[in-house]
Amino acid sequence: MKIIATKENLLTGIQTVQKAISNKNTIPILSGIYMKAKNNKLYFAATDLEIGIECKVPVQVLEEGEIVIPARHFSELVRKLPNTKITFTYLPEIIGLNIQYDEAEVDLKGWLGEEFPVIPDLEEEYCFEMDVNLLRNMIKQTIFATAVDDSRPIFTGALFEIEGNGLNIVTTDTHRLALRTGKINTSYDKGLNVIVPGKTLSEVSRIAKEEELIKIKGNYNQISFETEEARIISRIIDGKFPNYRQVIPQEYKTFVKTKTRAFQEIIERANLFTNEKDGTSIIKVSISDGLLQVSSKSQIGKVEEKLPIYVEGESIEISFNAKYLLDALKVIDSEDLNITLTGSLSPGIIKPGNHENFIYLILPLRTV
Amino acid sequence: MKIIATKENLLTGIQTVQKAISNKNTIPILSGIYMKAKNNKLYFAATDLEIGIECKVPVQVLEEGEIVIPARHFSELVRKLPNTKITFTYLPEIIGLNIQYDEAEVDLKGWLGEEFPVIPDLEEEYCFEMDVNLLRNMIKQTIFATAVDDSRPIFTGALFEIEGNGLNIVTTDTHRLALRTGKINTSYDKGLNVIVPGKTLSEVSRIAKEEELIKIKGNYNQISFETEEARIISRIIDGKFPNYRQVIPQEYKTFVKTKTRAFQEIIERANLFTNEKDGTSIIKVSISDGLLQVSSKSQIGKVEEKLPIYVEGESIEISFNAKYLLDALKVIDSEDLNITLTGSLSPGIIKPGNHENFIYLILPLRTV
Repeated sequence: MKIIATKENLLTGIQTVQKAISNKNTIPILSGIYMKAKNNKLYFAATDLEIGIECKVPVQVLEEGEIVIPARHFSELVRKLPNTKITFTYLPEIIGLNIQYDEAEVDLKGWLGEEFPVIPDLEEEYCFEMDVNLLRNMIKQTIFATAVDDSRPIFTGALFEIEGNGLNIVTTDTHRLALRTGKINTSYDKGLNVIVPGKTLSEVSRIAKEEELIKIKGNYNQISFETEEARIISRIIDGKFPNYRQVIPQEYKTFVKTKTRAFQEIIERANLFTNEKDGTSIIKVSISDGLLQVSSKSQIGKVEEKLPIYVEGESIEISFNAKYLLDALKVIDSEDLNITLTGSLSPGIIKPGNHENFIYLILPLRTV
Repeated sequence: MKIIATKENLLTGIQTVQKAISNKNTIPILSGIYMKAKNNKLYFAATDLEIGIECKVPVQVLEEGEIVIPARHFSELVRKLPNTKITFTYLPEIIGLNIQYDEAEVDLKGWLGEEFPVIPDLEEEYCFEMDVNLLRNMIKQTIFATAVDDSRPIFTGALFEIEGNGLNIVTTDTHRLALRTGKINTSYDKGLNVIVPGKTLSEVSRIAKEEELIKIKGNYNQISFETEEARIISRIIDGKFPNYRQVIPQEYKTFVKTKTRAFQEIIERANLFTNEKDGTSIIKVSISDGLLQVSSKSQIGKVEEKLPIYVEGESIEISFNAKYLLDALKVIDSEDLNITLTGSLSPGIIKPGNHENFIYLILPLRTV
């Protein structure tokens, strides 16, 4: 293996794959980045056996070959290299790379390329394409509602469900639920219902850059996300996602229209006066004719704010966990916000004012 | 106490004093910010009894008064306030503040202003003024060489020493020493020799903004740094700073002139291949006719770089702790760098190429 590369291309490759590098020290070679030089491309790969990321960048290949290099040292070194031609030569005597630039030489020890676990090609049971920016936005609007605690693994992932040419992404931690719908570019008849790990989706958001389309394919064990230059392969979470449709109320008794940012800022201030010790940030919301009042209190003090709003239907008092409200308000881009309620003990529904593609359901808190 | 203030002025006050707020919970009132309304100014003060910071901002005072408010909650609240008129009213029934803005009210509990420890006026045994940007630069070029470990307190501070109208700031952790000299605007005959805590100097750098002059005064127990709007008072570290002049070699056998950034980058890369486990990052520097070579090795690999330089005098091989070299290189602004050496076991001296106001001494490492 012998190649000539630029610092910029090397960095692109390293940064794309590095989140898949294993932090556990059980299998040393997984702390490395696999590199293969072929057809004037340098292929990068890394995996922790749950998720694998691959990509390729253009280089000048003088001699084909492969190697695995310790990720942390390699990435720190490349980051500090000058902007000059960088030559990599395989050193069989140390199973490593000789790296030359300007008047300098580095020898870096690694592992044999053939010892790296191969990221498999998937048996394809489904395959569709969609706009990459749309997918990134859908992930942003749902991923925060996954469970952190992995005692019930299905809630640490997001349901991917296809109906016709619409993709639904659904997440819940059993206290709230986020549902985002978006269009796919391929009509797909067979339906789809898989749970994708939250960590995988974070990585998809990160690697998907300015490309136009992303291809999603796989089977019921593994799923892959592919752009022109990169690919992520991940396991599917085993289990059955709850029937989320039956928990979303179809009717309401109170309808509120308000300004998203103004409401968010009021909740943020009210959240300062909640009892931090038990982890729930209780705020009280009172809705009456034309007026929304938010109040909270703690040992330190109390706050009470009023916001003029548009209201239809019954007056209501209801308590929420401020953190769960804020999570959703932060990812709603629309200027206006619709809130629908059906009573103090029933879930509240939040939607952007201008479209129907995002629904956020939040359970109220019982207060004494 | 009743005032009308802007969010911006309140934030300025809070941010200026907050680093002096005690993190320890032993005396609750010290976790608060003292505020006094008088003469259309709001005075802020905070102290952990080692360092005190005061400042004032313009407000509209409707009724004079004072209070102490929990710092963390108050600063989070102010940060989240809308950009509107904010009215503070003292609430004697809860010993706290009522804060009004737009359609909202916050009640925040505090402590009586009179219970806050007064930051004293200093008995003045010395007093001088200097350019605030110069002082900030002098601090930046010396503070990194103070000791982190406080087993010998004098090394956690910086020596302030006046000779004529020059101020010397000197720091050392016994492995290296930084000396920066700058002009003061007041001629001062009596000499000065005090050790100022490193933490105090970080704060001085932080609060000193674009003002032209800073006044430094105090005695041999306490020192204060005053700008137009803010004041820091700090204890002096008790003890005698070592005679640093006798450790700085006056002669040399090897003189090197090189480019600061190129040398820094080479050392940064060499630092990647040092043995991290024992905490010393040994790199070897070889100087011969017209050439500087830097090399290092670890279990992972090795690096060897060459840099063309200007050399006078003897060839030499010497080893340094790369981290100590980098600390100094990062704060040297000049394009060129002078290095003088007197042998493999004698300290090396680094100076900026264009002036004599900064000297950095670094002890070599013995290598087997």
